Amino acid sequence: MKKIIFVTGARSEYDLLYSVLKKLNQLAEIDLSILVTGAHLSEQFGKTLVHIEQDGFKIADKVYNLVDTNEKIGRVISLGHQIPAFAQTFIRLKPDVVMVAGDREEAISTAITAAYMGIVVAHFFGGDIAKDGNIDNSVRYATSKFAHLHFTTHPAHADVLRRLGEEPERIFVVGNPALDRFLETPVLDRQALSTALQFDITQGNYLVLVQHAIITEYAQSAVNIRQTLDAIVATGCNCLINYPNSDAGNYEIIKAYQEYAQKYPQLFLFQNLERTLFINVLRHAACLVGNSSLGILEAPSLGLPVVNVGSRQRGRLNAGNVIFTDYDTTQILAAIQQSLFDMAYRQSIKNIVNPYGDGHSAEKIVTILKNLVIDEKVIYKNITY
Amino acid sequence: MKKIIFVTGARSEYDLLYSVLKKLNQLAEIDLSILVTGAHLSEQFGKTLVHIEQDGFKIADKVYNLVDTNEKIGRVISLGHQIPAFAQTFIRLKPDVVMVAGDREEAISTAITAAYMGIVVAHFFGGDIAKDGNIDNSVRYATSKFAHLHFTTHPAHADVLRRLGEEPERIFVVGNPALDRFLETPVLDRQALSTALQFDITQGNYLVLVQHAIITEYAQSAVNIRQTLDAIVATGCNCLINYPNSDAGNYEIIKAYQEYAQKYPQLFLFQNLERTLFINVLRHAACLVGNSSLGILEAPSLGLPVVNVGSRQRGRLNAGNVIFTDYDTTQILAAIQQSLFDMAYRQSIKNIVNPYGDGHSAEKIVTILKNLVIDEKVIYKNITY
Amino acid sequence: MKKIIFVTGARSEYDLLYSVLKKLNQLAEIDLSILVTGAHLSEQFGKTLVHIEQDGFKIADKVYNLVDTNEKIGRVISLGHQIPAFAQTFIRLKPDVVMVAGDREEAISTAITAAYMGIVVAHFFGGDIAKDGNIDNSVRYATSKFAHLHFTTHPAHADVLRRLGEEPERIFVVGNPALDRFLETPVLDRQALSTALQFDITQGNYLVLVQHAIITEYAQSAVNIRQTLDAIVATGCNCLINYPNSDAGNYEIIKAYQEYAQKYPQLFLFQNLERTLFINVLRHAACLVGNSSLGILEAPSLGLPVVNVGSRQRGRLNAGNVIFTDYDTTQILAAIQQSLFDMAYRQSIKNIVNPYGDGHSAEKIVTILKNLVIDEKVIYKNITY
Amino acid sequence: MKKIIFVTGARSEYDLLYSVLKKLNQLAEIDLSILVTGAHLSEQFGKTLVHIEQDGFKIADKVYNLVDTNEKIGRVISLGHQIPAFAQTFIRLKPDVVMVAGDREEAISTAITAAYMGIVVAHFFGGDIAKDGNIDNSVRYATSKFAHLHFTTHPAHADVLRRLGEEPERIFVVGNPALDRFLETPVLDRQALSTALQFDITQGNYLVLVQHAIITEYAQSAVNIRQTLDAIVATGCNCLINYPNSDAGNYEIIKAYQEYAQKYPQLFLFQNLERTLFINVLRHAACLVGNSSLGILEAPSLGLPVVNVGSRQRGRLNAGNVIFTDYDTTQILAAIQQSLFDMAYRQSIKNIVNPYGDGHSAEKIVTILKNLVIDEKVIYKNITY
Repeated sequence: MKKIIFVTGARSEYDLLYSVLKKLNQLAEIDLSILVTGAHLSEQFGKTLVHIEQDGFKIADKVYNLVDTNEKIGRVISLGHQIPAFAQTFIRLKPDVVMVAGDREEAISTAITAAYMGIVVAHFFGGDIAKDGNIDNSVRYATSKFAHLHFTTHPAHADVLRRLGEEPERIFVVGNPALDRFLETPVLDRQALSTALQFDITQGNYLVLVQHAIITEYAQSAVNIRQTLDAIVATGCNCLINYPNSDAGNYEIIKAYQEYAQKYPQLFLFQNLERTLFINVLRHAACLVGNSSLGILEAPSLGLPVVNVGSRQRGRLNAGNVIFTDYDTTQILAAIQQSLFDMAYRQSIKNIVNPYGDGHSAEKIVTILKNLVIDEKVIYKNITY
Repeated sequence: MKKIIFVTGARSEYDLLYSVLKKLNQLAEIDLSILVTGAHLSEQFGKTLVHIEQDGFKIADKVYNLVDTNEKIGRVISLGHQIPAFAQTFIRLKPDVVMVAGDREEAISTAITAAYMGIVVAHFFGGDIAKDGNIDNSVRYATSKFAHLHFTTHPAHADVLRRLGEEPERIFVVGNPALDRFLETPVLDRQALSTALQFDITQGNYLVLVQHAIITEYAQSAVNIRQTLDAIVATGCNCLINYPNSDAGNYEIIKAYQEYAQKYPQLFLFQNLERTLFINVLRHAACLVGNSSLGILEAPSLGLPVVNVGSRQRGRLNAGNVIFTDYDTTQILAAIQQSLFDMAYRQSIKNIVNPYGDGHSAEKIVTILKNLVIDEKVIYKNITY
Repeated sequence: MKKIIFVTGARSEYDLLYSVLKKLNQLAEIDLSILVTGAHLSEQFGKTLVHIEQDGFKIADKVYNLVDTNEKIGRVISLGHQIPAFAQTFIRLKPDVVMVAGDREEAISTAITAAYMGIVVAHFFGGDIAKDGNIDNSVRYATSKFAHLHFTTHPAHADVLRRLGEEPERIFVVGNPALDRFLETPVLDRQALSTALQFDITQGNYLVLVQHAIITEYAQSAVNIRQTLDAIVATGCNCLINYPNSDAGNYEIIKAYQEYAQKYPQLFLFQNLERTLFINVLRHAACLVGNSSLGILEAPSLGLPVVNVGSRQRGRLNAGNVIFTDYDTTQILAAIQQSLFDMAYRQSIKNIVNPYGDGHSAEKIVTILKNLVIDEKVIYKNITY
Repeated sequence: MKKIIFVTGARSEYDLLYSVLKKLNQLAEIDLSILVTGAHLSEQFGKTLVHIEQDGFKIADKVYNLVDTNEKIGRVISLGHQIPAFAQTFIRLKPDVVMVAGDREEAISTAITAAYMGIVVAHFFGGDIAKDGNIDNSVRYATSKFAHLHFTTHPAHADVLRRLGEEPERIFVVGNPALDRFLETPVLDRQALSTALQFDITQGNYLVLVQHAIITEYAQSAVNIRQTLDAIVATGCNCLINYPNSDAGNYEIIKAYQEYAQKYPQLFLFQNLERTLFINVLRHAACLVGNSSLGILEAPSLGLPVVNVGSRQRGRLNAGNVIFTDYDTTQILAAIQQSLFDMAYRQSIKNIVNPYGDGHSAEKIVTILKNLVIDEKVIYKNITY
């Protein structure tokens, strides 16, 4: 029996890995549990622990660590508090493997804790490159340096990991498991969707906005988001707006959302939409606006044009469905209009191939984990040069 | 006025950086303080905080974090507790730069804390390679991924950092500042040394033993060190033995030392020897045994042959003065005897060039720090590929 | 020079002690600094650190500890994180005395930390009794058991402390220093106040509502507060509503406030009103509603009738200006109407004597602290029986 | 099924409660687990976790918290780190009751954590009085203020708790459960004991020394213990010496023990002796020296004379078998000689009644816990005045 703990601090990464977790949970030879931390446990961020429990997963521990502040210091104190807490879980359960995803606090704190304790770390989404000077990049690369297994979404990412000195036999290109659910999620029509949301999107084009705060720009959050909101309002389209993650600056963004939503009935705010609903919201959307990785990683599978605003995601390999703009109403408006009305552009995106996977990632990942032999060779990492 | 905080958790790294700290402290335009943590604050490890205070440095804060256990979990819990504590110091003092050295807990916890808070991290001794599968490697490379300035001791290390994607303009080859003190430390003769130590080393060859525990081998510590001690006893030489660092497994090593020292009067244990004495102990020694980085980095400047026992330091570039052996009495004894009696070998080492520096590192480092412009460009890191 | 650190985690206790702090800061023989923590550092609670800085006090350290959750576990994790953080401050500054007030997390964590470190703890507002089964009671009494000096507001409180076994010479009845500012704060008329608040209260009776969440009832917060809001709306009066403290359940209260405020223009929400304005708001108010200790401790000095809703404050000695009600709209409405229209009752309250002090507390407290001899006798506590 | 967690940080309190734990573990309606922390997890203090595991108890969690320092700050940092760690265990297991004993860090940290989380706290050995000005007193009384059930060893202690305002129905006089094992532990003769210990105590009088460091006197530890050791050496008797607890100052004591033991073969050091052996060591001893609570609480059941050295235990109610002395060789020697050779005194002690229990405490305690109804009434504490 192989014991695996998945550590998750945010709805987004839980959703990305959901297809893998579901498959692992069905295997008799895998004992999976989930260590829930970060934004999952905060009412402000929708207390998404509830979803994980409803999905039927075993909870390894709940680690309440999110420090209530808008300042940069908050994230790193929260990270620090996770380490002894995770160590307490790991020494009790003695997992064979811990899994983490991405480039947030949980990724690095989990990887450090497990690596020091001699536990195999499986890291998802390493090797990605975003040229935005953000702390996330440092976190992602550093996490790779502690990880023993790398599940990447693209050959270019695997290549980055090899250049970082990671041994080739530790690196697997498996694609993005989030795409699996696009194949699996049943289609809802706009009428059903409108009823479920209690917001009418049966008619016309609508936009979806997902914008996260950037720690290095958190003081400008309030100004920047207004540039986007003004452009959206100017289109006259309905827009479904998803709450941001728990980064420094997100309070300002939420405040702006609430203020605009009160003034403009075309705007509809939601938080932690149920997965099936959210995928269908994207399916019928005319354009995704903001700076979510959704636009890069998942939108191509839906043939969805994306307007990426600001520095986040810049420099990341994309399928050709993304227009990058500054925090500038005019630029944003132009990009949205191109996405909505430039028919040649829309057509080119419609059947684009998603470079990040084919919807069959979960089975590849699960097979690798199932067959993994846990021995000294896996634990003892060396740099290849 | 540029505010700099040096974070240190062990006597060894404090000594390595001492020449830099002393020079920084003399500059009117630099406000230097030292954040003291880890083994410096433990009576078990000689409470070396006292030396730092005696050397006249300003103490930024004292962070008591070392968890009292011999298990692997101890180091990572200790690391976790440092992060909120360091954040508390950094938000109070708002340093322009924090400096850390090497690959221990303090290195990564400092680098993470500062990087998240948008403070420039200057890291010493990055890019080094040890092919021992130890956690220290992961820590060292991960620290580099958070650092904004890299002070390396060798062009080959700078090359590793570039391959890790670090931007070339952040990397400086400055040599090992620990070598500076060899030029500066007055020579004591064997008589004076014997008096100071209260142990007679006026006659014949004597050895120095410095062996640190290895986290991945901590259960074997007790067995491994006995192999070395048996070899040393068999030489009949006097041997000065330095206490190990605060790693898992060090209790077993200390216990073996005390047991052997009680039996064999040729063995002499010491802890945290005063710097001038220690350098002179090395100057007159016939051979350095163990697994300290001293053998690789500093012994060449003294023309000192080294027997490196076990996996630590293996794969690190050395000047040709090091014989590597397993934990095996026969091998170790043979290597010590070659170091003592193979005259051609001894001669070749006598005037060897130390590839790690020329004794003028501190001034290079201080100049770079003095001239450093702290702006967004320094803070915003990008990977070069 | 006597070094004193005041530890504060909430605006309320800072305001209560403000007159003392101001006086201490003016003395040459006292070196006062303030350790700021808890809600002071949260944007959600108005980031009142800013006020402390503006008031010109030296900040000893900023301890970000508030865990972002609405569950009961949040408060105690926050408390735990304060202890090592406070210890870090105390060992750096080596205060002669630390001061804390009341019965919140900061009180007990400060008292424990200082008592273990052999530092004198001066505790304000001990010996008070509230018969509500709340954790605050346990915290208050336990804090007294760690404290070396007790500054109480009423002889009955001093009596409780003596019965708890506290040595009489450690107990001082000094009154509530918050009352000092009533004498000192200049009077603003309703016109000036309306202009400052940007809310018109020039005409008619207005109410003030201050309701804090109760940890043991936090699940009912949303329901309970609506009972009060319905009663207030039914009076037709304007009502100024102050945000609650950072206790579990406060999110529900805030949400209800925002919802009602959107519907009823007679309601006006404010957060961390500037002190002079707030005192004048109370001066002209017709009735204070809620469960704030203001009603018990300070309202008598203003001749202000109070309607105390729910279990908080119940059992506390009061001047006769308080009507206690359940969470019940009918009861609350009746009590407000009695407070507004029962002229005999209003008259009886007008010139009531405040049993909690005469407005000259700060000078008494400062004199005691100034003359305090810090020796082993102060530190070594014994129970009197 | 009632879920109970016992929190323990030291061998001594585990032993005191062992008879209760064993009985609870046998009940089908009780789900008992043990949260192991503090000195139990330190190799320095004999890693007594191993005993708990061998005794067959379920481990709830292991909380590594002991900070490696000899300074006073160490204990309170260790205490602080326990709170979030305990909260993590409690929110996972949702115990009905947590049990703690005595007046050490674990007692107060457990009581605070559970009380804030609305979990019933059962506290053992509250209400005891020691007039030594030590922090332990403050900890013990403060723990009582958070506890919901008090298991006391003596009516006088119950009386103290009532005077502290604790409600009478929460207080139970059950005696000291450590005495139960005296009835249950089989008798070993001196020959068997000598064989087991590998130290010959078949002939003549022997002493037992158990001396713990006192935090407020930790700087004098080294001097004080030498006064005792000199007296013991002067008696010419064999002496079995038990290691001290993990308090500040204990390193100095251990060092002195090792130094004297090397010089005087009549001294025999042991650490964490197996329970049956230790009880038999006490059974045959001529006199117990030191400052352990054993002398007060348990020695009367064995008719054992005690010399209590220094301030610890002073003022505690005792059966008449204890002579109190200062840290003074002459006084200590005289008291030991009286204990050994004053036949009237020895006779008076032989069949003394132990005021702290009759050896049937565990069954009383277990019955109370079994019948306890967990409801709001138990949780909501009020002071009785």
